[in-house]
Amino acid sequence: MNRIPVGILGATGTVGQRFVQLLADHPWFKPIALAASDRSAGQRYADACHWLLSEPMPEAVTALVVRPIKLSLDCHLVFSALPSDVAGPVEESFAGVGYAVCSNAAAHRMDPDVPLLIPEVNPDHTELIDAQRRRHGGEGFIVTSANCSTTQLAMALKPLHDSFGLRQVSVVTMQAVSGAGYPGLPAMDILDNVIPFIPGEEDKLEQEPLKLLGTLGDGRVTDAAFVVSAQCNRVPIRDGHTECVSVEFEHQPDVGAVKAALREFIGPSRVARLPSSPARPILVRREADRPQAARDRHAQEGMSISVGRVRPCSLLDVKFVVLGHNTLRGAAGGSIHNAELLVDQGWIAR
Amino acid sequence: MNRIPVGILGATGTVGQRFVQLLADHPWFKPIALAASDRSAGQRYADACHWLLSEPMPEAVTALVVRPIKLSLDCHLVFSALPSDVAGPVEESFAGVGYAVCSNAAAHRMDPDVPLLIPEVNPDHTELIDAQRRRHGGEGFIVTSANCSTTQLAMALKPLHDSFGLRQVSVVTMQAVSGAGYPGLPAMDILDNVIPFIPGEEDKLEQEPLKLLGTLGDGRVTDAAFVVSAQCNRVPIRDGHTECVSVEFEHQPDVGAVKAALREFIGPSRVARLPSSPARPILVRREADRPQAARDRHAQEGMSISVGRVRPCSLLDVKFVVLGHNTLRGAAGGSIHNAELLVDQGWIAR
Amino acid sequence: MNRIPVGILGATGTVGQRFVQLLADHPWFKPIALAASDRSAGQRYADACHWLLSEPMPEAVTALVVRPIKLSLDCHLVFSALPSDVAGPVEESFAGVGYAVCSNAAAHRMDPDVPLLIPEVNPDHTELIDAQRRRHGGEGFIVTSANCSTTQLAMALKPLHDSFGLRQVSVVTMQAVSGAGYPGLPAMDILDNVIPFIPGEEDKLEQEPLKLLGTLGDGRVTDAAFVVSAQCNRVPIRDGHTECVSVEFEHQPDVGAVKAALREFIGPSRVARLPSSPARPILVRREADRPQAARDRHAQEGMSISVGRVRPCSLLDVKFVVLGHNTLRGAAGGSIHNAELLVDQGWIAR
Amino acid sequence: MNRIPVGILGATGTVGQRFVQLLADHPWFKPIALAASDRSAGQRYADACHWLLSEPMPEAVTALVVRPIKLSLDCHLVFSALPSDVAGPVEESFAGVGYAVCSNAAAHRMDPDVPLLIPEVNPDHTELIDAQRRRHGGEGFIVTSANCSTTQLAMALKPLHDSFGLRQVSVVTMQAVSGAGYPGLPAMDILDNVIPFIPGEEDKLEQEPLKLLGTLGDGRVTDAAFVVSAQCNRVPIRDGHTECVSVEFEHQPDVGAVKAALREFIGPSRVARLPSSPARPILVRREADRPQAARDRHAQEGMSISVGRVRPCSLLDVKFVVLGHNTLRGAAGGSIHNAELLVDQGWIAR
Repeated sequence: MNRIPVGILGATGTVGQRFVQLLADHPWFKPIALAASDRSAGQRYADACHWLLSEPMPEAVTALVVRPIKLSLDCHLVFSALPSDVAGPVEESFAGVGYAVCSNAAAHRMDPDVPLLIPEVNPDHTELIDAQRRRHGGEGFIVTSANCSTTQLAMALKPLHDSFGLRQVSVVTMQAVSGAGYPGLPAMDILDNVIPFIPGEEDKLEQEPLKLLGTLGDGRVTDAAFVVSAQCNRVPIRDGHTECVSVEFEHQPDVGAVKAALREFIGPSRVARLPSSPARPILVRREADRPQAARDRHAQEGMSISVGRVRPCSLLDVKFVVLGHNTLRGAAGGSIHNAELLVDQGWIAR
Repeated sequence: MNRIPVGILGATGTVGQRFVQLLADHPWFKPIALAASDRSAGQRYADACHWLLSEPMPEAVTALVVRPIKLSLDCHLVFSALPSDVAGPVEESFAGVGYAVCSNAAAHRMDPDVPLLIPEVNPDHTELIDAQRRRHGGEGFIVTSANCSTTQLAMALKPLHDSFGLRQVSVVTMQAVSGAGYPGLPAMDILDNVIPFIPGEEDKLEQEPLKLLGTLGDGRVTDAAFVVSAQCNRVPIRDGHTECVSVEFEHQPDVGAVKAALREFIGPSRVARLPSSPARPILVRREADRPQAARDRHAQEGMSISVGRVRPCSLLDVKFVVLGHNTLRGAAGGSIHNAELLVDQGWIAR
Repeated sequence: MNRIPVGILGATGTVGQRFVQLLADHPWFKPIALAASDRSAGQRYADACHWLLSEPMPEAVTALVVRPIKLSLDCHLVFSALPSDVAGPVEESFAGVGYAVCSNAAAHRMDPDVPLLIPEVNPDHTELIDAQRRRHGGEGFIVTSANCSTTQLAMALKPLHDSFGLRQVSVVTMQAVSGAGYPGLPAMDILDNVIPFIPGEEDKLEQEPLKLLGTLGDGRVTDAAFVVSAQCNRVPIRDGHTECVSVEFEHQPDVGAVKAALREFIGPSRVARLPSSPARPILVRREADRPQAARDRHAQEGMSISVGRVRPCSLLDVKFVVLGHNTLRGAAGGSIHNAELLVDQGWIAR
Repeated sequence: MNRIPVGILGATGTVGQRFVQLLADHPWFKPIALAASDRSAGQRYADACHWLLSEPMPEAVTALVVRPIKLSLDCHLVFSALPSDVAGPVEESFAGVGYAVCSNAAAHRMDPDVPLLIPEVNPDHTELIDAQRRRHGGEGFIVTSANCSTTQLAMALKPLHDSFGLRQVSVVTMQAVSGAGYPGLPAMDILDNVIPFIPGEEDKLEQEPLKLLGTLGDGRVTDAAFVVSAQCNRVPIRDGHTECVSVEFEHQPDVGAVKAALREFIGPSRVARLPSSPARPILVRREADRPQAARDRHAQEGMSISVGRVRPCSLLDVKFVVLGHNTLRGAAGGSIHNAELLVDQGWIAR
């Protein structure tokens, strides 16, 4: 199969760089248009971009000339790594003229006819695209990936909700600085420090899981009925979000059943065959002190989340720790995974 | 008043060094015996001790010869910074021959006739000393300070329990590496990492607050009746523990009442006049992103805790963030504070 | 003696905050005017300032209203913590209307009639003020403190140049992020990283020591005749610059003589009695692995530098390590020290 | 070609883990014997090993049973990641009974008949093996890779010495904590700190380059005739050593010629075809602030070094910055590269 030509909106930012890195050798997609703000447009990508990843910039893209963010990119699929404040109208315009937009931005996540999507969690929610296309009056549409903290939480919650029915979820996050983009946090604010606040993050973490685990019916998604309480912190590490989670269920399983449900989760078999799907979406660690950001964030190319310390909780039923890579599964990797699902389901033509 | 001569058991370790630093210029106590393991005994303190604090070693102690840990120190009061595995019997022996022992170790914290003490929280619990003296058959006794994570949590909970009655407490900690002593954590384990496990810590944090906020009656302490669930993490910072706390009350106060109770807490007036007592035990921060370890840990010489982000919780009633200095208020400073209380109450003779 | 009222220009930045902190309880100076950009002017200092130091903001200044940077501050002495790009003309204006300006900025350091001053190193260079006053046509003048990296290097070189005559100096620095101000370096640039470049820094380090150790004669300073080669790096620590230095002398001393010259250096006795003068400007460490930023930067309130590892060099004559606190001795503390010298010498009236 | 079975001595340590990781999928070698101390022997590798790398342990080795370090491993080639204090006699025994030993330990590096080897730098030095075999009386021999700091320095110096003749080299290192092994440095020693001393490191860095760039003749190596002065520092980063280097040449090239010599260096063409050889051993960066550990250490799978900031020096002729990955090219990767050379040259049979 020929690789599908794709564009990246916001290609020079931190998430945009991850898109570039992951798409450079992707079996289905080929990045042909790197678009960024007018300040960067016209320069070689290698010159326009302050590359922040620890692996070198892929050779194939260094000489691409950065394009302005205009509705004339030579492709039908674009990935959006735009900052939240501009993503809303720009993505809307691209969808309006027929592009499929796979976005990592928050702007449209909670729109009723926009799928908020994790392939293993709610692949059926793509059905919302029909309604959206009717609104746009064309083939274009927007699909969104969740907030980085939400993604790994929702993946862990999915098999638990399916098996035991969630009632209450309490989550405290310890998030890496790469989640704040670039320049993001000043070093003087976070070296040897913990910042117990991330603007807007707790709201996302309390709301997005309800849509992700919601039920599709009559062309709309009904939110799941449990309650989430979130507290979000920034810690001085580069990549990988750690979350301490406590949950209460309708049907009170024992700890062994919870571990088994997590360990055995694989998602629909068609999803499991997508190029970015890890062999196991959830890795359950047995060690007393895992998962750890420095050791587990790259599991399965950063597309698996790791869960550990599953144990009884004296307040709710069970507590555990979830670790995921915030810029791989939690951002660019998640959006690319969504695009793969859309191709597989036929929403995007090969 | 002449300064009371005191000894320090385990004077060369990290907590021992804090004792040395804080006692060097203390108005009531004068460190005259620095005791440590046989490996160090006989050397000058400056030679025996791998000094770890960012302020230089006090001049007055550099030339003191380190003593072995024997029952022949020329003082009646000793501070114990012994490691947990040896503290138990050693402290018992010292108390058995008449020393007052102010310990920072965990060994005797939960003994029924040993006060687990924070001056502003439960100064009346010193009454347990009577029973203990009867057991020892002499003037000696042991008083303990709480685990570092417990101390700052219990201080924040005290005015809330008094005013509104605690039912449930959920706490997730982000703890500094100095809490693990020296050598403690290998750099390769914690640089750019979060470790979601600290051996024994969650048990302490779930049990000690119940004794600290318990009720004295008939010469014994009845544990407070609320439940605590704790999850403990190590993060790559040097000093200062951050805790995300959610609480449920018997009498559901609004957020304003909770803030007021925290802000107005001062403890008994006699306690407030002790040399190590801060003007305010609890500082309530109004900023959206405080308290922070790097900015608030030294508040009031590290003897105040800082609370911030007091807000409603979607699961329990209220949630907030607590920050304290783990080796000042949470360790050596707390034990010295206890000793001041004991002098003030007459348990230790001036 | 009544405290002399002083102003601080650029009072809300990182260096400005250090000025505020150090002057709050200064025995000779009293901060009465905190001036900053128009964005901050009019607000309470506590509101205008994003306080970055680990010790809390001094109570005395929290309620001061920030003043605009205008030539109407009610004092005769101002400290300048202005950013380099605006410091030049602003300081000139203040001097032009009669203020004594003690500046930490680079703008005027190399002006021929402006003293570049470290009290223990070249207190006689204040004589340049006469020429400067003639130029300004009034009582006003500017005195500058050196770059942070230069200050600690020049202090270590001073006794060596006096005793043995410097020919060549090679220095490689490892500098803390606080030296870059705020916001300064993005965390993503420096966490788990070394940046081998600091704009403009190497030039300063190669030139300023020559003026500092230069000879005053006929109302001007003749640069010292040695050569410096500098390489500057940023490392992920908050405070304290470490410098690896190699030197070649005219008269080749043995290592013992070099250590003795460093250890015995005290500067002129009048200087030694200034309030900010440490008992010893240079502390010589004997341990194999010192000085260290985390352990030695606060020596003598951060006003002493620490030197260690003095040993033979296979290329030049001797090599050693120098450590100093970049925002105390190396910035605000140094400028205040200069002002003390000016008062003591009568250039500023009590 | 069938993969050659190999053993790893010290397979559970930090360098041993890198050997395991790099050999798991190596095209020429297959790890079949993981040997470690008696404490680990007999356990599954996954259980015996506290895995420290950020990529997961290769599946293929998890179930291998750790062998004791005995002369009965079923292979003819062993890699040694033994700690320095035990490597000496153990490696000697293995060579004595016929094993080819590719060692990363320091013990035998300076032995006259043991090659200290970097394939691109001195591939002809393997001729020393003849003499060594005569001494051992069999087919066995030891070949060593250089100290991590030396490796990257010697690679940068090689083309410069060949083209312009080195006279003097001054180097200051900023080394990552992974170089100290595990547990290595306590976090309390290096978080927010620089330690200006690494035991034994400066001697290695002053001596090993002379052997590496030495001349083979009459079956022995004559050291190169230049002088190195080294100062070594530990900084709080995980991987990647940064070195600030100044050099003086016999023939004074201009900066452009130095850059060209570095950029064009490729080593012998047979070496360039080895599996671990990077396309370019030396990458010359043009950016003002590169190379950087976080961004350049993984260049070419961590087997290229990066050089930047090549510029004139006011003392010697030219100065520049060198960056390399200390546990890839600088340790395990270097030893494997050496083994590839030995296979290619026929010293080890396929």
